[in-house]
Amino acid sequence: MSKTTKTKPIRIVAMGKYLPQAMSSEALEKKHSLPAGWAMKYSGVQNRHVASQESNGWMGARAAEEALQKAGMTLHDIDMLISGGGTYDYPIPNQASVIKAEMKDGNACHTPAIDIDSTCLSFVTALDFAAKILDGKAYKNILIVSSEIASKGINPTNWETLTLFGDGAAATVVSYAPEQASCYIKGMQRTYSEGVYHTLIEGGGNRKFFKDYPYDPELHSFQMKGKQLLKLTKRLLPDFMEVFFADTDYALATVDAIVPHQASKLGAALFQRLFDFASGQVKTTLAHYGNCIAASIPLTLMAAIDEGSIQRGDICLLAGTSAGFAIGGVLLRY
Amino acid sequence: MSKTTKTKPIRIVAMGKYLPQAMSSEALEKKHSLPAGWAMKYSGVQNRHVASQESNGWMGARAAEEALQKAGMTLHDIDMLISGGGTYDYPIPNQASVIKAEMKDGNACHTPAIDIDSTCLSFVTALDFAAKILDGKAYKNILIVSSEIASKGINPTNWETLTLFGDGAAATVVSYAPEQASCYIKGMQRTYSEGVYHTLIEGGGNRKFFKDYPYDPELHSFQMKGKQLLKLTKRLLPDFMEVFFADTDYALATVDAIVPHQASKLGAALFQRLFDFASGQVKTTLAHYGNCIAASIPLTLMAAIDEGSIQRGDICLLAGTSAGFAIGGVLLRY
Repeated sequence: MSKTTKTKPIRIVAMGKYLPQAMSSEALEKKHSLPAGWAMKYSGVQNRHVASQESNGWMGARAAEEALQKAGMTLHDIDMLISGGGTYDYPIPNQASVIKAEMKDGNACHTPAIDIDSTCLSFVTALDFAAKILDGKAYKNILIVSSEIASKGINPTNWETLTLFGDGAAATVVSYAPEQASCYIKGMQRTYSEGVYHTLIEGGGNRKFFKDYPYDPELHSFQMKGKQLLKLTKRLLPDFMEVFFADTDYALATVDAIVPHQASKLGAALFQRLFDFASGQVKTTLAHYGNCIAASIPLTLMAAIDEGSIQRGDICLLAGTSAGFAIGGVLLRY
Repeated sequence: MSKTTKTKPIRIVAMGKYLPQAMSSEALEKKHSLPAGWAMKYSGVQNRHVASQESNGWMGARAAEEALQKAGMTLHDIDMLISGGGTYDYPIPNQASVIKAEMKDGNACHTPAIDIDSTCLSFVTALDFAAKILDGKAYKNILIVSSEIASKGINPTNWETLTLFGDGAAATVVSYAPEQASCYIKGMQRTYSEGVYHTLIEGGGNRKFFKDYPYDPELHSFQMKGKQLLKLTKRLLPDFMEVFFADTDYALATVDAIVPHQASKLGAALFQRLFDFASGQVKTTLAHYGNCIAASIPLTLMAAIDEGSIQRGDICLLAGTSAGFAIGGVLLRY
């Protein structure tokens, strides 16, 4: 007997990415006088990419153009452009407008450009919303772009975040495709406010406005209470997954692929310990890209597709945790 | 013959607001040594509200609690909390998470908390998305909160923005309500990238990061190319409205109420000149609240409902322009 809530004929048609210049942990350790091997040992990151001249908008536009080209589309075929990310070029206008303006055909198309922000889960939320909005009529194709520059908001004296984070952009064309086997099965998010400030950039918004709080690497950099986050995740994740799968025909242990947010080495270890996944079931790019905020999940999905470890027909769970504190996931047949 | 695309049984159940302390134009002119009468003459604003100790999150939470109380609901009844705004307390976490954490029951409920940002159109976009997502099953009630503090990002030497903007929060409970006559008819947005930087806060994001660009009232304040914006609007708005109404049973000239973004005095005059609306058809709060970014449309809708000039059954168009540059609207039967 099928328990599944009705699936929807939604298909990830194509993906693109842009990665700025690579920086090995060896080079990073030398640059900031860290002990050799520290990054890999504590963050599990061997290499990350770091933007120099690139902006969020420019990287996102390059990723978007690659995705469109692979999909055999142009921006004219896209009914909505969603930026799903936690970092941005300007406080105003919204990031999607900047990405669109940086794209070929950006001026010629009047595609609505909208931001969705649930920090690290922004891509998952955007995909969930896109799947709900796509109807094959007014909305046939939606382009989701997650372009993140984490490196600017990093305090170099905080080795944990310095070695963990990376920059990069991923773009995804999602379409209403009733003639295909691909489908959207379910999406769910929960925000647990007890952890609201476990992940924080304290300065730079209205609370500690820049006028009154000049630049201070503590105040204007990413702060992460790693231990508390792990504790919260450990307590809340099993229940989330139980509820998530309860009304579906699937189980966490038997889905073909899990694409988690690449939060941290300890996060990945906790995830494995909690659920005892089969070898190869959980996809990872942490060692190669670091934690790229909302771009991590689509970059990891794209890497798994490109290497053939996720194939058409596979049941995939894209899931993770985010600042706020939230857990979220989308289940789909790729 | 009905041309209308299928309507959806969506109802704005209740609204709430929070306005910080009022500041008359007289007081503002005195404080900043402006000529008496300048504000009303050039901005059309007699009074605005200015946050002092209040934060975006706190104001949003108070507005949300009023809306919930009027709806006879608590946060436990809400399936998603959307923050639809252009200003924020912190770069991370997202604003919806902060609003939720500031609410009574914030810790007890695990309501997903998601930001939608299309700057001044954020409420309209959030309402459009909410209408599409509400299904009477997983999503019965969605709470949209637009809480804006514009006053921090204002350059006091720029009289035009100094006198125009105001702070405030509005909250809206939107529900799937098949037993009611209320319905969602249509939503549409177009982003015209030629105007992407006509409205801009240049500093404070990754492009001109704090670390490299110390506070400068020019760089970290709201800049508006008023003339270019009016020119673009004049050229693009008539076509937008024609396309918007083409496949509906309604016409701009005969809808019961138009709730526009309270962009500026000249914007309002242009809107009237372009379409020659009937007296009372277009709602305004510009003189009382100023331009409250994304909170302007819901605050104006709420004022019209409270004074009885919008009543149940009325066909209402909520529409406006935003940074990016975009035009957007939602048509509904209240």
